[in-house]
Amino acid sequence: MNPAKAVVLLSGGMDSATVLAIARAEGFETYALSVAYGQRHTSELIAAARVARDLGAKVHKTVTIDLRSIGGSALTADIDVPEHGGEGIPITYVPARNTIMLSVALGWAEVLGAQEIFCGVNAVDYSGYPDCRPAFIEAFERLGNLATKAAVEGNRLRVRAPLIDLSKADIVRRGIELGVDFGSTVSCYQADADGRACGHCDACRLRTAGFVAAGVPDPTNYVG
Amino acid sequence: MNPAKAVVLLSGGMDSATVLAIARAEGFETYALSVAYGQRHTSELIAAARVARDLGAKVHKTVTIDLRSIGGSALTADIDVPEHGGEGIPITYVPARNTIMLSVALGWAEVLGAQEIFCGVNAVDYSGYPDCRPAFIEAFERLGNLATKAAVEGNRLRVRAPLIDLSKADIVRRGIELGVDFGSTVSCYQADADGRACGHCDACRLRTAGFVAAGVPDPTNYVG
Repeated sequence: MNPAKAVVLLSGGMDSATVLAIARAEGFETYALSVAYGQRHTSELIAAARVARDLGAKVHKTVTIDLRSIGGSALTADIDVPEHGGEGIPITYVPARNTIMLSVALGWAEVLGAQEIFCGVNAVDYSGYPDCRPAFIEAFERLGNLATKAAVEGNRLRVRAPLIDLSKADIVRRGIELGVDFGSTVSCYQADADGRACGHCDACRLRTAGFVAAGVPDPTNYVG
Repeated sequence: MNPAKAVVLLSGGMDSATVLAIARAEGFETYALSVAYGQRHTSELIAAARVARDLGAKVHKTVTIDLRSIGGSALTADIDVPEHGGEGIPITYVPARNTIMLSVALGWAEVLGAQEIFCGVNAVDYSGYPDCRPAFIEAFERLGNLATKAAVEGNRLRVRAPLIDLSKADIVRRGIELGVDFGSTVSCYQADADGRACGHCDACRLRTAGFVAAGVPDPTNYVG
Protein backbone atom coordinates (compact mmCIF):
# COMPACT_ATOMS: atom_id res chain seq x y z
CA MET A 1 0.00 0.00 0.00
CA ASN A 2 1.30 3.46 -0.86
CA PRO A 3 2.01 5.87 1.99
CA ALA A 4 -0.63 8.52 2.64
CA LYS A 5 0.13 11.93 1.18
CA ALA A 6 0.31 15.21 3.08
CA VAL A 7 0.64 18.75 1.79
CA VAL A 8 2.96 20.75 4.05
CA LEU A 9 3.06 24.55 3.92
CA LEU A 10 6.76 25.40 3.94
CA SER A 11 7.95 28.97 4.30
CA GLY A 12 11.64 28.21 4.80
CA GLY A 13 11.52 29.30 8.43
CA MET A 14 12.22 27.13 11.48
CA ASP A 15 8.60 26.39 12.31
CA SER A 16 7.49 25.00 8.97
CA ALA A 17 10.75 23.03 8.64
CA THR A 18 9.92 21.34 11.94
CA VAL A 19 6.40 20.63 10.70
CA LEU A 20 7.76 19.00 7.55
CA ALA A 21 9.96 16.78 9.74
CA ILE A 22 6.96 15.88 11.92
CA ALA A 23 4.86 14.93 8.87
CA ARG A 24 7.69 12.73 7.62
CA ALA A 25 8.15 11.14 11.05
CA GLU A 26 4.44 10.26 11.04
CA GLY A 27 5.00 8.32 7.82
CA PHE A 28 3.46 10.66 5.26
CA GLU A 29 4.78 11.13 1.76
CA THR A 30 5.23 14.89 1.89
CA TYR A 31 4.38 17.51 -0.73
CA ALA A 32 5.94 20.80 0.33
CA LEU A 33 4.18 23.96 -0.79
CA SER A 34 5.71 27.42 -0.71
CA VAL A 35 3.77 30.50 -1.68
CA ALA A 36 5.63 33.39 -3.29
CA TYR A 37 3.24 36.15 -2.26
CA GLY A 38 5.49 39.11 -2.93
CA GLN A 39 7.32 38.95 0.41
CA ARG A 40 10.42 41.10 0.65
CA HIS A 41 12.44 38.28 2.17
CA THR A 42 12.83 36.08 -0.93
CA SER A 43 15.79 34.26 0.61
CA GLU A 44 13.10 32.48 2.65
CA LEU A 45 11.94 30.78 -0.56
CA ILE A 46 15.47 29.67 -1.40
CA ALA A 47 15.72 28.25 2.11
CA ALA A 48 12.40 26.43 1.58
CA ALA A 49 13.78 24.60 -1.44
CA ARG A 50 16.87 23.55 0.54
CA VAL A 51 14.81 22.40 3.53
CA ALA A 52 12.40 20.44 1.31
CA ARG A 53 15.32 18.58 -0.26
CA ASP A 54 17.10 17.93 3.04
CA LEU A 55 13.95 16.61 4.71
CA GLY A 56 13.01 14.33 1.85
CA ALA A 57 9.89 15.99 0.46
CA LYS A 58 8.61 14.05 -2.54
CA VAL A 59 7.83 17.30 -4.40
CA HIS A 60 8.43 20.95 -3.57
CA LYS A 61 6.22 23.40 -5.39
CA THR A 62 6.22 27.19 -5.23
CA VAL A 63 2.98 28.90 -6.27
CA THR A 64 3.15 32.59 -7.09
CA ILE A 65 0.41 34.99 -6.04
CA ASP A 66 0.85 38.71 -6.10
CA LEU A 67 -0.36 39.91 -2.71
CA ARG A 68 1.62 43.12 -3.11
CA SER A 69 -1.19 44.36 -5.31
CA ILE A 70 -3.65 44.35 -2.40
CA GLY A 71 -1.12 45.97 -0.05
CA GLY A 72 -1.53 46.41 3.70
CA SER A 73 1.56 44.83 5.29
CA ALA A 74 5.16 45.68 6.09
CA LEU A 75 6.10 42.29 4.62
CA THR A 76 4.80 43.10 1.15
CA ALA A 77 4.42 46.88 0.96
CA ASP A 78 6.99 49.62 1.22
CA ILE A 79 6.68 50.05 5.00
CA ASP A 80 9.66 49.60 7.34
CA VAL A 81 9.76 46.36 9.32
CA PRO A 82 9.65 47.38 13.01
CA GLU A 83 12.50 46.30 15.29
CA HIS A 84 10.29 45.47 18.25
CA GLY A 85 6.66 44.51 18.54
CA GLY A 86 4.06 46.83 20.08
CA GLU A 87 0.58 46.09 21.39
CA GLY A 88 -2.09 44.37 19.29
CA ILE A 89 -1.72 42.90 15.84
CA PRO A 90 1.71 43.59 14.33
CA ILE A 91 2.22 45.54 11.11
CA THR A 92 3.99 42.47 9.67
CA TYR A 93 0.60 40.71 9.60
CA VAL A 94 -0.29 40.05 5.95
CA PRO A 95 -4.07 40.34 5.34
CA ALA A 96 -5.60 36.89 4.96
CA ARG A 97 -2.21 35.30 4.29
CA ASN A 98 -2.84 32.03 6.09
CA THR A 99 -6.34 31.79 4.59
CA ILE A 100 -4.90 32.21 1.10
CA MET A 101 -2.01 29.80 1.64
CA LEU A 102 -4.26 27.13 3.14
CA SER A 103 -6.65 27.59 0.21
CA VAL A 104 -3.89 26.89 -2.29
CA ALA A 105 -2.83 23.89 -0.17
CA LEU A 106 -6.44 22.71 -0.27
CA GLY A 107 -6.47 22.84 -4.05
CA TRP A 108 -3.23 20.91 -4.34
CA ALA A 109 -4.34 18.37 -1.72
CA GLU A 110 -7.42 17.71 -3.78
CA VAL A 111 -5.41 17.20 -6.96
CA LEU A 112 -3.00 14.85 -5.16
CA GLY A 113 -5.66 12.95 -3.24
CA ALA A 114 -4.04 14.07 0.04
CA GLN A 115 -6.26 14.16 3.12
CA GLU A 116 -3.87 16.03 5.41
CA ILE A 117 -2.62 19.59 5.27
CA PHE A 118 0.12 20.53 7.74
CA CYS A 119 0.95 24.11 8.68
CA GLY A 120 3.30 25.72 11.16
CA VAL A 121 1.12 28.16 13.06
CA ASN A 122 2.07 28.28 16.73
CA ALA A 123 1.32 29.79 20.09
CA VAL A 124 3.82 32.61 19.74
CA ASP A 125 2.27 33.91 16.53
CA TYR A 126 -1.15 33.20 18.05
CA SER A 127 -0.66 36.11 20.44
CA GLY A 128 -0.66 38.59 17.59
CA TYR A 129 -2.00 37.19 14.33
CA PRO A 130 -5.72 36.32 14.17
CA ASP A 131 -5.16 33.60 11.57
CA CYS A 132 -2.89 31.61 13.89
CA ARG A 133 -5.55 30.75 16.46
CA PRO A 134 -6.91 27.22 17.00
CA ALA A 135 -10.45 28.44 16.16
CA PHE A 136 -9.19 29.64 12.79
CA ILE A 137 -7.60 26.28 11.97
CA GLU A 138 -10.79 24.46 12.97
CA ALA A 139 -12.90 26.79 10.82
CA PHE A 140 -10.61 26.22 7.85
CA GLU A 141 -10.85 22.44 8.25
CA ARG A 142 -14.64 22.75 8.34
CA LEU A 143 -14.60 24.91 5.21
CA GLY A 144 -12.25 22.50 3.43
CA ASN A 145 -14.64 19.65 4.09
CA LEU A 146 -17.40 21.57 2.33
CA ALA A 147 -15.28 22.99 -0.48
CA THR A 148 -13.88 20.09 -2.40
CA LYS A 149 -15.00 17.31 -4.65
CA ALA A 150 -12.86 14.92 -2.61
CA ALA A 151 -14.59 15.84 0.65
CA VAL A 152 -18.03 15.62 -0.96
CA GLU A 153 -17.11 12.12 -2.07
CA GLY A 154 -16.22 11.15 1.51
CA ASN A 155 -12.47 11.72 1.82
CA ARG A 156 -12.39 13.85 4.94
CA LEU A 157 -9.71 16.51 5.17
CA ARG A 158 -7.64 17.17 8.28
CA VAL A 159 -5.79 20.43 8.85
CA ARG A 160 -2.89 19.81 11.23
CA ALA A 161 -1.08 22.49 13.21
CA PRO A 162 1.26 20.38 15.39
CA LEU A 163 3.17 23.38 16.76
CA ILE A 164 0.13 25.28 17.90
CA ASP A 165 0.76 24.75 21.62
CA LEU A 166 4.56 24.77 21.54
CA SER A 167 6.94 27.51 22.61
CA LYS A 168 9.86 28.42 20.36
CA ALA A 169 12.15 26.45 22.70
CA ASP A 170 9.90 23.39 22.32
CA ILE A 171 9.99 23.80 18.55
CA VAL A 172 13.80 23.97 18.59
CA ARG A 173 14.00 20.77 20.67
CA ARG A 174 11.45 18.92 18.55
CA GLY A 175 13.19 19.95 15.32
CA ILE A 176 16.60 18.85 16.55
CA GLU A 177 15.19 15.46 17.67
CA LEU A 178 13.86 15.00 14.14
CA GLY A 179 17.08 16.00 12.39
CA VAL A 180 16.17 19.49 11.19
CA ASP A 181 19.23 21.58 10.31
CA PHE A 182 18.08 24.98 11.55
CA GLY A 183 21.15 26.56 9.96
CA SER A 184 19.37 25.97 6.62
CA THR A 185 16.25 27.84 7.66
CA VAL A 186 15.59 31.58 7.37
CA SER A 187 13.12 33.29 9.71
CA CYS A 188 14.23 36.94 9.46
CA TYR A 189 11.65 39.33 7.96
CA GLN A 190 14.43 41.18 6.14
CA ALA A 191 17.15 38.61 5.50
CA ASP A 192 19.66 39.61 2.84
CA ALA A 193 20.11 37.86 -0.50
CA ASP A 194 22.43 35.29 1.12
CA GLY A 195 19.82 34.48 3.77
CA ARG A 196 21.70 36.30 6.54
CA ALA A 197 19.44 37.49 9.36
CA CYS A 198 19.22 41.06 10.71
CA GLY A 199 19.07 39.89 14.33
CA HIS A 200 16.70 42.71 15.29
CA CYS A 201 13.22 42.16 13.84
CA ASP A 202 10.45 40.36 15.74
CA ALA A 203 11.06 37.09 13.88
CA CYS A 204 14.79 37.17 14.72
CA ARG A 205 14.14 38.02 18.36
CA LEU A 206 11.67 35.16 18.82
CA ARG A 207 14.00 32.75 17.08
CA THR A 208 17.11 33.76 19.01
CA ALA A 209 15.23 33.56 22.30
CA GLY A 210 14.05 30.07 21.34
CA PHE A 211 17.60 28.75 20.98
CA VAL A 212 18.63 30.40 24.26
CA ALA A 213 15.62 28.94 26.11
CA ALA A 214 16.25 25.49 24.61
CA GLY A 215 19.92 25.69 25.65
CA VAL A 216 21.03 24.93 22.09
CA PRO A 217 23.70 26.79 20.08
CA ASP A 218 22.11 29.21 17.60
CA PRO A 219 23.19 28.21 14.06
CA THR A 220 21.68 31.33 12.47
CA ASN A 221 23.87 33.24 10.03
CA TYR A 222 23.61 36.87 11.12
CA VAL A 223 24.64 39.94 9.14
CA GLY A 224 27.90 41.53 10.37
CA MET B 1 -20.77 59.86 5.49
CA ASN B 2 -18.88 57.86 2.90
CA PRO B 3 -20.69 54.95 1.25
CA ALA B 4 -19.86 51.49 2.58
CA LYS B 5 -17.37 49.55 0.51
CA ALA B 6 -17.90 46.12 -1.00
CA VAL B 7 -15.44 43.81 -2.73
CA VAL B 8 -17.13 42.08 -5.67
CA LEU B 9 -15.60 39.03 -7.32
CA LEU B 10 -15.88 39.71 -11.03
CA SER B 11 -15.06 37.02 -13.57
CA GLY B 12 -16.35 38.82 -16.64
CA GLY B 13 -19.25 36.39 -17.01
CA MET B 14 -22.94 37.21 -16.81
CA ASP B 15 -23.42 36.14 -13.20
CA SER B 16 -20.72 38.25 -11.59
CA ALA B 17 -21.68 41.25 -13.78
CA THR B 18 -25.19 40.98 -12.36
CA VAL B 19 -23.78 40.76 -8.84
CA LEU B 20 -21.74 43.92 -9.40
CA ALA B 21 -24.91 45.69 -10.53
CA ILE B 22 -26.76 44.42 -7.44
CA ALA B 23 -24.01 45.68 -5.09
CA ARG B 24 -24.13 49.07 -6.77
CA ALA B 25 -27.95 49.16 -6.59
CA GLU B 26 -27.67 48.52 -2.83
CA GLY B 27 -25.56 51.66 -2.53
CA PHE B 28 -22.11 50.18 -2.06
CA GLU B 29 -18.94 51.72 -3.42
CA THR B 30 -17.71 48.71 -5.36
CA TYR B 31 -14.20 47.28 -5.62
CA ALA B 32 -14.19 44.69 -8.37
CA LEU B 33 -11.69 41.85 -8.05
CA SER B 34 -10.70 39.52 -10.85
CA VAL B 35 -8.35 36.63 -10.33
CA ALA B 36 -6.09 35.59 -13.19
CA TYR B 37 -5.62 31.97 -12.14
CA GLY B 38 -4.26 30.63 -15.38
CA GLN B 39 -7.65 30.08 -17.02
CA ARG B 40 -7.52 29.33 -20.71
CA HIS B 41 -10.28 31.81 -21.45
CA THR B 42 -8.37 35.08 -20.88
CA SER B 43 -10.91 37.06 -22.86
CA GLU B 44 -13.03 36.70 -19.69
CA LEU B 45 -10.56 38.99 -17.92
CA ILE B 46 -10.77 41.58 -20.69
CA ALA B 47 -14.55 41.42 -20.37
CA ALA B 48 -14.22 41.91 -16.60
CA ALA B 49 -12.37 45.20 -17.08
CA ARG B 50 -15.07 46.39 -19.50
CA VAL B 51 -17.91 45.37 -17.18
CA ALA B 52 -16.23 47.02 -14.15
CA ARG B 53 -15.96 50.29 -16.05
CA ASP B 54 -19.51 50.15 -17.45
CA LEU B 55 -21.02 49.39 -14.04
CA GLY B 56 -19.11 52.11 -12.23
CA ALA B 57 -16.73 50.11 -10.03
CA LYS B 58 -14.52 52.49 -8.04
CA VAL B 59 -11.49 50.25 -8.64
CA HIS B 60 -10.96 47.09 -10.68
CA LYS B 61 -8.02 44.96 -9.66
CA THR B 62 -6.74 41.75 -11.19
CA VAL B 63 -4.63 39.54 -8.91
CA THR B 64 -2.52 36.88 -10.57
CA ILE B 65 -2.15 33.41 -9.07
CA ASP B 66 -0.77 30.50 -10.96
CA LEU B 67 -3.23 27.66 -10.39
CA ARG B 68 -1.96 25.90 -13.50
CA SER B 69 0.95 24.71 -11.41
CA ILE B 70 -1.31 22.59 -9.21
CA GLY B 71 -3.26 21.22 -12.19
CA GLY B 72 -6.43 19.19 -12.01
CA SER B 73 -8.98 20.99 -14.23
CA ALA B 74 -9.95 21.29 -17.86
CA LEU B 75 -10.04 25.07 -17.35
CA THR B 76 -6.35 25.31 -16.46
CA ALA B 77 -4.70 22.10 -17.65
CA ASP B 78 -4.31 20.65 -21.09
CA ILE B 79 -7.54 18.65 -21.02
CA ASP B 80 -10.31 19.19 -23.58
CA VAL B 81 -13.35 21.11 -22.38
CA PRO B 82 -16.32 18.74 -22.72
CA GLU B 83 -19.26 19.74 -24.89
CA HIS B 84 -21.93 18.43 -22.56
CA GLY B 85 -21.99 17.70 -18.86
CA GLY B 86 -22.14 14.20 -17.44
CA GLU B 87 -23.08 12.97 -13.98
CA GLY B 88 -21.39 14.30 -10.84
CA ILE B 89 -18.83 17.05 -10.53
CA PRO B 90 -17.71 18.36 -13.94
CA ILE B 91 -14.11 18.26 -15.16
CA THR B 92 -14.25 22.04 -15.53
CA TYR B 93 -14.31 22.29 -11.71
CA VAL B 94 -11.07 24.01 -10.59
CA PRO B 95 -9.82 22.61 -7.26
CA ALA B 96 -10.52 25.08 -4.44
CA ARG B 97 -11.06 27.93 -6.88
CA ASN B 98 -13.83 29.69 -4.98
CA THR B 99 -11.99 29.20 -1.68
CA ILE B 100 -8.88 30.81 -3.14
CA MET B 101 -10.73 33.69 -4.81
CA LEU B 102 -12.76 34.44 -1.68
CA SER B 103 -9.52 34.36 0.35
CA VAL B 104 -7.95 37.01 -1.86
CA ALA B 105 -11.16 39.04 -1.63
CA LEU B 106 -10.96 38.70 2.15
CA GLY B 107 -7.45 40.13 2.18
CA TRP B 108 -8.43 43.05 -0.02
CA ALA B 109 -11.59 43.69 2.02
CA GLU B 110 -9.47 43.92 5.12
CA VAL B 111 -7.08 46.40 3.52
CA LEU B 112 -9.99 48.51 2.25
CA GLY B 113 -12.03 48.32 5.43
CA ALA B 114 -14.87 46.68 3.48
CA GLN B 115 -17.29 44.49 5.44
CA GLU B 116 -19.06 42.91 2.47
CA ILE B 117 -17.79 40.47 -0.13
CA PHE B 118 -20.12 39.70 -3.03
CA CYS B 119 -19.76 36.66 -5.24
CA GLY B 120 -21.77 35.18 -8.07
CA VAL B 121 -22.26 31.56 -7.09
CA ASN B 122 -25.69 30.28 -8.03
CA ALA B 123 -28.07 27.38 -7.99
CA VAL B 124 -27.11 26.12 -11.44
CA ASP B 125 -23.44 25.77 -10.53
CA TYR B 126 -24.55 24.42 -7.14
CA SER B 127 -25.73 21.22 -8.79
CA GLY B 128 -22.18 20.31 -9.74
CA TYR B 129 -19.52 22.35 -7.92
CA PRO B 130 -19.12 21.73 -4.16
CA ASP B 131 -17.86 25.28 -3.55
CA CYS B 132 -21.09 26.83 -4.84
CA ARG B 133 -23.34 25.51 -2.08
CA PRO B 134 -24.94 27.72 0.59
CA ALA B 135 -23.17 25.72 3.32
CA PHE B 136 -19.83 26.57 1.72
CA ILE B 137 -20.60 30.29 1.64
CA GLU B 138 -21.69 30.21 5.29
CA ALA B 139 -18.52 28.36 6.28
CA PHE B 140 -16.39 30.89 4.45
CA GLU B 141 -18.12 33.78 6.20
CA ARG B 142 -17.50 32.09 9.53
CA LEU B 143 -13.83 31.57 8.65
CA GLY B 144 -13.48 35.18 7.50
CA ASN B 145 -14.79 36.38 10.84
CA LEU B 146 -12.01 34.47 12.61
CA ALA B 147 -9.24 35.22 10.11
CA THR B 148 -8.80 38.95 10.03
CA LYS B 149 -7.60 41.78 12.21
CA ALA B 150 -10.71 43.73 11.20
CA ALA B 151 -13.07 40.97 12.39
CA VAL B 152 -11.12 40.51 15.62
CA GLU B 153 -11.58 44.22 16.22
CA GLY B 154 -15.35 43.89 15.78
CA ASN B 155 -16.05 44.71 12.12
CA ARG B 156 -18.09 41.71 11.13
CA LEU B 157 -17.74 40.40 7.61
CA ARG B 158 -20.64 39.35 5.41
CA VAL B 159 -20.24 37.11 2.40
CA ARG B 160 -23.09 37.75 -0.02
CA ALA B 161 -24.19 35.39 -2.78
CA PRO B 162 -27.32 37.12 -4.09
CA LEU B 163 -27.75 34.78 -7.07
CA ILE B 164 -27.58 31.59 -5.07
CA ASP B 165 -31.28 30.75 -5.46
CA LEU B 166 -31.81 32.19 -8.94
CA SER B 167 -32.15 30.36 -12.23
CA LYS B 168 -30.22 31.61 -15.24
CA ALA B 169 -33.44 33.15 -16.56
CA ASP B 170 -33.91 35.02 -13.27
CA ILE B 171 -30.32 36.25 -13.49
CA VAL B 172 -30.89 37.51 -17.03
CA ARG B 173 -34.02 39.38 -15.94
CA ARG B 174 -32.40 40.85 -12.83
CA GLY B 175 -29.33 41.97 -14.79
CA ILE B 176 -31.41 43.66 -17.49
CA GLU B 177 -33.47 45.49 -14.84
CA LEU B 178 -30.23 46.84 -13.40
CA GLY B 179 -28.77 47.92 -16.72
CA VAL B 180 -26.22 45.15 -17.30
CA ASP B 181 -25.10 44.94 -20.93
CA PHE B 182 -24.78 41.17 -21.28
CA GLY B 183 -23.21 41.65 -24.70
CA SER B 184 -20.10 42.84 -22.82
CA THR B 185 -19.83 39.68 -20.72
CA VAL B 186 -18.06 36.45 -21.65
CA SER B 187 -19.17 33.15 -20.12
CA CYS B 188 -17.74 30.63 -22.60
CA TYR B 189 -15.06 28.29 -21.22
CA GLN B 190 -13.14 28.54 -24.48
CA ALA B 191 -13.95 31.96 -25.92
CA ASP B 192 -11.56 33.15 -28.60
CA ALA B 193 -9.22 36.13 -28.28
CA ASP B 194 -12.03 38.47 -29.34
CA GLY B 195 -14.35 37.09 -26.65
CA ARG B 196 -16.50 35.14 -29.14
CA ALA B 197 -18.25 32.15 -27.59
CA CYS B 198 -18.10 28.56 -28.85
CA GLY B 199 -21.84 27.99 -28.28
CA HIS B 200 -21.27 24.36 -27.28
CA CYS B 201 -19.58 24.13 -23.84
CA ASP B 202 -21.58 23.80 -20.60
CA ALA B 203 -21.21 27.51 -19.82
CA CYS B 204 -22.54 28.50 -23.26
CA ARG B 205 -25.43 26.04 -23.06
CA LEU B 206 -26.53 27.32 -19.64
CA ARG B 207 -26.22 30.91 -20.78
CA THR B 208 -28.10 30.43 -24.04
CA ALA B 209 -30.89 28.56 -22.28
CA GLY B 210 -31.14 31.42 -19.77
CA PHE B 211 -31.86 33.97 -22.47
CA VAL B 212 -34.39 31.66 -24.10
CA ALA B 213 -36.16 30.99 -20.79
CA ALA B 214 -36.21 34.71 -19.95
CA GLY B 215 -37.65 35.48 -23.38
CA VAL B 216 -34.87 37.97 -24.06
CA PRO B 217 -32.75 38.25 -27.23
CA ASP B 218 -29.32 36.66 -26.72
CA PRO B 219 -26.64 39.35 -27.30
CA THR B 220 -23.77 36.84 -27.17
CA ASN B 221 -21.18 37.07 -29.92
CA TYR B 222 -20.76 33.50 -31.18
CA VAL B 223 -17.96 32.13 -33.34
CA GLY B 224 -18.99 31.53 -36.98
